[in-house]
Amino acid sequence: MGGDSGPGVVVAALARSVLRHPAARFLLHGDEATLKPLLAKRPKLGPKVEIRHAPEQVRMEDKPSTVLRRGRNTSMWHAIASVKAGEAEVAVSAGNTGALMAMSMFQLGVLDGISRPAIASIWPTKRGQSIVLDVGANISSDSDQLVDFAVMGEAFARAILGLERPSVGLLNVGSEDVKGHDAVKAAAHILRGASLPIEFRGFVEGDDIAEGTVDVVVTDGFSGNIALKTAEGTAKLVVTYLRGALNRSLFGRLGGFIAAGALKALRRKLDPRASNGGIFLGLNGIVVKSHGGTDAIGFASALDMAIDMARSGVIRRIIADRANLISAMPEAAAS
Amino acid sequence: MGGDSGPGVVVAALARSVLRHPAARFLLHGDEATLKPLLAKRPKLGPKVEIRHAPEQVRMEDKPSTVLRRGRNTSMWHAIASVKAGEAEVAVSAGNTGALMAMSMFQLGVLDGISRPAIASIWPTKRGQSIVLDVGANISSDSDQLVDFAVMGEAFARAILGLERPSVGLLNVGSEDVKGHDAVKAAAHILRGASLPIEFRGFVEGDDIAEGTVDVVVTDGFSGNIALKTAEGTAKLVVTYLRGALNRSLFGRLGGFIAAGALKALRRKLDPRASNGGIFLGLNGIVVKSHGGTDAIGFASALDMAIDMARSGVIRRIIADRANLISAMPEAAAS
Repeated sequence: MGGDSGPGVVVAALARSVLRHPAARFLLHGDEATLKPLLAKRPKLGPKVEIRHAPEQVRMEDKPSTVLRRGRNTSMWHAIASVKAGEAEVAVSAGNTGALMAMSMFQLGVLDGISRPAIASIWPTKRGQSIVLDVGANISSDSDQLVDFAVMGEAFARAILGLERPSVGLLNVGSEDVKGHDAVKAAAHILRGASLPIEFRGFVEGDDIAEGTVDVVVTDGFSGNIALKTAEGTAKLVVTYLRGALNRSLFGRLGGFIAAGALKALRRKLDPRASNGGIFLGLNGIVVKSHGGTDAIGFASALDMAIDMARSGVIRRIIADRANLISAMPEAAAS
Repeated sequence: MGGDSGPGVVVAALARSVLRHPAARFLLHGDEATLKPLLAKRPKLGPKVEIRHAPEQVRMEDKPSTVLRRGRNTSMWHAIASVKAGEAEVAVSAGNTGALMAMSMFQLGVLDGISRPAIASIWPTKRGQSIVLDVGANISSDSDQLVDFAVMGEAFARAILGLERPSVGLLNVGSEDVKGHDAVKAAAHILRGASLPIEFRGFVEGDDIAEGTVDVVVTDGFSGNIALKTAEGTAKLVVTYLRGALNRSLFGRLGGFIAAGALKALRRKLDPRASNGGIFLGLNGIVVKSHGGTDAIGFASALDMAIDMARSGVIRRIIADRANLISAMPEAAAS
């Protein structure tokens, strides 16, 4: 439990989260002998956190197929089981993504009519925030899956970003109709179907994500994951360049000193921990994946996102939207 | 000619380039009636630029198949033909990428043993510069093509970045061996072959590009193009955030004013025009694609890159490396 960083990070994150969400209650799955002393140090957590003993844990190198067969005593399995049993509204984990998805699909099941779940990410843009999915649940996606992602992403944007009619774009290597591989072209054809209840804007390119051209960017998990990590790397690089540029001259250092508050605000805004969490969409239950290497601040952000998700009714919306889609265009979308 | 921006941009770029490369000579393909008055205004260009009349031009919306059949009178066709004829060492265009690649393949031919050309991009990193390819020549790539890209990228890094033994990584959604789709896994298997003369470091992720983890990042054209444009968009977004953060407070504005020189240096460093140009690798000739919407500064950077390429002997290196690769591992790589 706790991904690369261990249970200490999770307990420290809980301590932050209870301040922000006084009504929330937590089930903490893991090794009781490890967790008890950690909780004992934080008496305010006591009434809000219940430890559920799980003797084993999924390791980062475990294969999804292995954990499905032999992982029933792990904290990850137990956490998802508590959602399945209705004891918890949402499960949060910083562990092995592949294992988390496999266990989630196995225990919670995939929503009726959705072929594959996706991981959605909330992305900062010039206009505010956009949703990008899939950022890593799937290695490749056919056109029906991309259409499913569009439906789920659109419902998610309404539930989480509070938009009435989110715009949706398909990520491609050009905005012209002739560009791209067969799956994106076929998905665009389905989404352009006149009677669909989706504000589909066609193809968008990589730079449109940060531009905020559309509210929901749909892509396969391979390209989406590469885009997400490339953006994270680029933001870090620019901050490194900024620091270097300011340190190179006396005026730079002086200006940087005077503008320290503004630069700190910038760093906070770019801090990947502030929007830490990929949301598994398309399951009969909510699962949030925190970044594996995060700290208490980052894991607390994942908890925030999980609590938002639980309150949003996003699963009901996805089910309703999918039903609308099928009734609007039965011959193409009903797979 | 001149992409979205027209011949005025190209002529202004030539005026910059002749100052930096006094020995270079240019063939300018396009409509003589348009080009003559533009050149007449810049008498210093006169002795170094020769106009070659081409009555037509490829439009941005033209399909590659169409221009191959009906584009023989275009400036793009003529520019590539002049490389084929040995009159020019390299062709530069800001036009339609698909048309430029199709015409280049048709006229120049693909290097023996290379299955598909790729577009290489020079990418700023924390350590300096890396090569990323393919950034858009192909929509999907099988394992043999990815191996070809590795060979070409490695030769390119030695020729252009001056590295003796560039390291090579395959872009994937995780660094573990089990991750990714079949093509990247099979390509990794071939590249790991012990006797290959390539410093192959295995899988890298999106954030490794800006980190400079390896000198050459190999990927398919779909993911590569999305990564490139996502990075451009992210860098622009961070600069927008920086401007916003500084303008929001008096201290921010004051600090920004004092550090103006440093911030200007940062903007110059991030200016995509400074490294403008995708290099077509794998052809019997050199073709450089400038960004379509660029200005004279950007197009002049593409000319710089073209001149560097012409001097580097990169094609000879690729041919030699490919031959080494085949002799080192005939059963897997010789396709």
